[in-house]
Amino acid sequence: MTDSITISVDAMGGDHAPRAVIHGAHLALKERKNTRFVFHGRQEQIAPLLDEFPALKPVSTVRHCETVIAMDEKPSQALRKGKGTSSMWMAIQSVKDGEADVAISGGNTGALMAMATFCLRPMEGISRPGIAAIWPTLRSDIIVLDMGATIGADARQLVDYAILGSALARALFDAESPSVGLLNVGTEEVKGLDYIKEAGRMLSEASGAGFTYHGFVEGDDIGKGTVDVVVTEGFVGNVALKTAEGTARQVASYLRSSLRATLMSRIGALFASSALNALRRKMDPRTVNGGVFMGLNGIVIKSHGGTDEIGYKSALGLAYEMARSRLMDKVGDTMHRFPIHKAAAGTPTETEARSA
Amino acid sequence: MTDSITISVDAMGGDHAPRAVIHGAHLALKERKNTRFVFHGRQEQIAPLLDEFPALKPVSTVRHCETVIAMDEKPSQALRKGKGTSSMWMAIQSVKDGEADVAISGGNTGALMAMATFCLRPMEGISRPGIAAIWPTLRSDIIVLDMGATIGADARQLVDYAILGSALARALFDAESPSVGLLNVGTEEVKGLDYIKEAGRMLSEASGAGFTYHGFVEGDDIGKGTVDVVVTEGFVGNVALKTAEGTARQVASYLRSSLRATLMSRIGALFASSALNALRRKMDPRTVNGGVFMGLNGIVIKSHGGTDEIGYKSALGLAYEMARSRLMDKVGDTMHRFPIHKAAAGTPTETEARSA
Repeated sequence: MTDSITISVDAMGGDHAPRAVIHGAHLALKERKNTRFVFHGRQEQIAPLLDEFPALKPVSTVRHCETVIAMDEKPSQALRKGKGTSSMWMAIQSVKDGEADVAISGGNTGALMAMATFCLRPMEGISRPGIAAIWPTLRSDIIVLDMGATIGADARQLVDYAILGSALARALFDAESPSVGLLNVGTEEVKGLDYIKEAGRMLSEASGAGFTYHGFVEGDDIGKGTVDVVVTEGFVGNVALKTAEGTARQVASYLRSSLRATLMSRIGALFASSALNALRRKMDPRTVNGGVFMGLNGIVIKSHGGTDEIGYKSALGLAYEMARSRLMDKVGDTMHRFPIHKAAAGTPTETEARSA
Repeated sequence: MTDSITISVDAMGGDHAPRAVIHGAHLALKERKNTRFVFHGRQEQIAPLLDEFPALKPVSTVRHCETVIAMDEKPSQALRKGKGTSSMWMAIQSVKDGEADVAISGGNTGALMAMATFCLRPMEGISRPGIAAIWPTLRSDIIVLDMGATIGADARQLVDYAILGSALARALFDAESPSVGLLNVGTEEVKGLDYIKEAGRMLSEASGAGFTYHGFVEGDDIGKGTVDVVVTEGFVGNVALKTAEGTARQVASYLRSSLRATLMSRIGALFASSALNALRRKMDPRTVNGGVFMGLNGIVIKSHGGTDEIGYKSALGLAYEMARSRLMDKVGDTMHRFPIHKAAAGTPTETEARSA
């Protein structure tokens, strides 16, 4: 395929913007030559950086924006201040206008989600967007969502996440019918989880329509890679992701101390250094950077704000793959193949009726 | 201290009972000589095992029970079938009767929680019990609760968990005023978390009364050991614990593959073998086995059901330390020092009033 992919970039989002962003784009371009970039942000800061990376300059367009959204700004504030003017908003607007295939920002998550939802609007039939993480497991990468786009969920929203996650798995992993699991606790007969059970019933009935419903999974099934898509409510998903990140850092730190402990272990580490470096690269959080906003009329990727050019390179690569694999078409197709979803679209589910 | 500690043991709980349980007791006794055991279960299975471990026999009493609760039995079923007759119930009853200082079972969690709650009853002023985990972190061990005793919580229940967790930290770690954090997501202005914010306000006001309120923490703060006690609702706590276990196994598996990858790495692993074995021991889940049921009139420890004698040894050691450190007195003392808790004891909180 020779068509180029255009990525709309909030050049001002993140702790090390715009330098880390532009440098990251330079590295991403080396890996994927047919990428074009539209950078939104302060011309006077971006232009000298493009001069530093001459290969990047001819495939880049700069759109000047004066307004920059701060990392600690509240979503509602950010929306008031930055709608139509900020680098974050304009990056999303480029996707809406059809100028770019996908937008990316390392800016604050709440503000980005608010702007993306306001600008792109949720897809027909999807009540609320979700953030999907691509999670490395012992088997292969899997999709976990929602990572905290919304707090609380009902059965119908979990079903939406299952559809969106399946579409993402089909786009990224070429899985024809990805397996989907609902995150739950093992204990039987627990109260307060009726919405998960109800979602399970709905997914059971629709299993086969673009995904295969596996059943409930527990926290340790994520790392095992038991299913291709793990579906959960946003608060739980966010805690799970950060707990896993914390645990990975903890174990890595234990390993470093162990290998520094004695002369023999230091010699051992020297012999094993190339294998240990490979492990370090595998566990480098910068290589799996990027949350995918799902359920909107357009693709938006959230990069970690604190990352460097390597992190941005990964997130831009992810953005490229999303666009190349025609994620939006696959989401539409999965929704179309989902009879329950269509049937339920007009009528509230039991849970919704109860909570109303 | 020369007083002995008596541990009441459900000898039939867990996948490898009673052999792993009795063998574990034998190992635990070697480390803590002044332990006495009351084993509940099938006499004909337990007696021959005690013959195998002659040191254990003189400090052990066997109470025959015919009924054994299965690992997949529903709590309500288990309670109907096993109340007053099963090894699980009788292990708890020994604590209620004052015969033992603490009870332990590797049987099914839901059934054990139901029986413990029914038999021992929640403490005055505590609405619902919680399960606390002792979680190894980069700083030191910390307490995380609730691990899934109950699903869903309101502000008042989180405050209860903070009191119970602080008391446990004081008993186990000799911390005079343990720091307490409420698990939350970083995003500002999220909806549906009013009960966490309300708990935060209540804990702020009471900070200093046997604990120090730190504020909100996120998932990665657990592994960092940011606070001594992390408080969360049971579903989230259970997912966090299992996700962390899964991640630790995943990283350990990556490490094993890396060190087997090349001749050089295998030589390196040989040199570093003693350090790597120490790391393996440190990460051995059997060494941190045991969930502590908190908030009841008596101490009950849940061991992993699938563990072996090493796991039971750890859980029995934990049970011993709980009793030795006079956990129940410390819980009472912490509650007594907690003005908000006492004041709120009679009147429903805002959240409760709203949800009523």
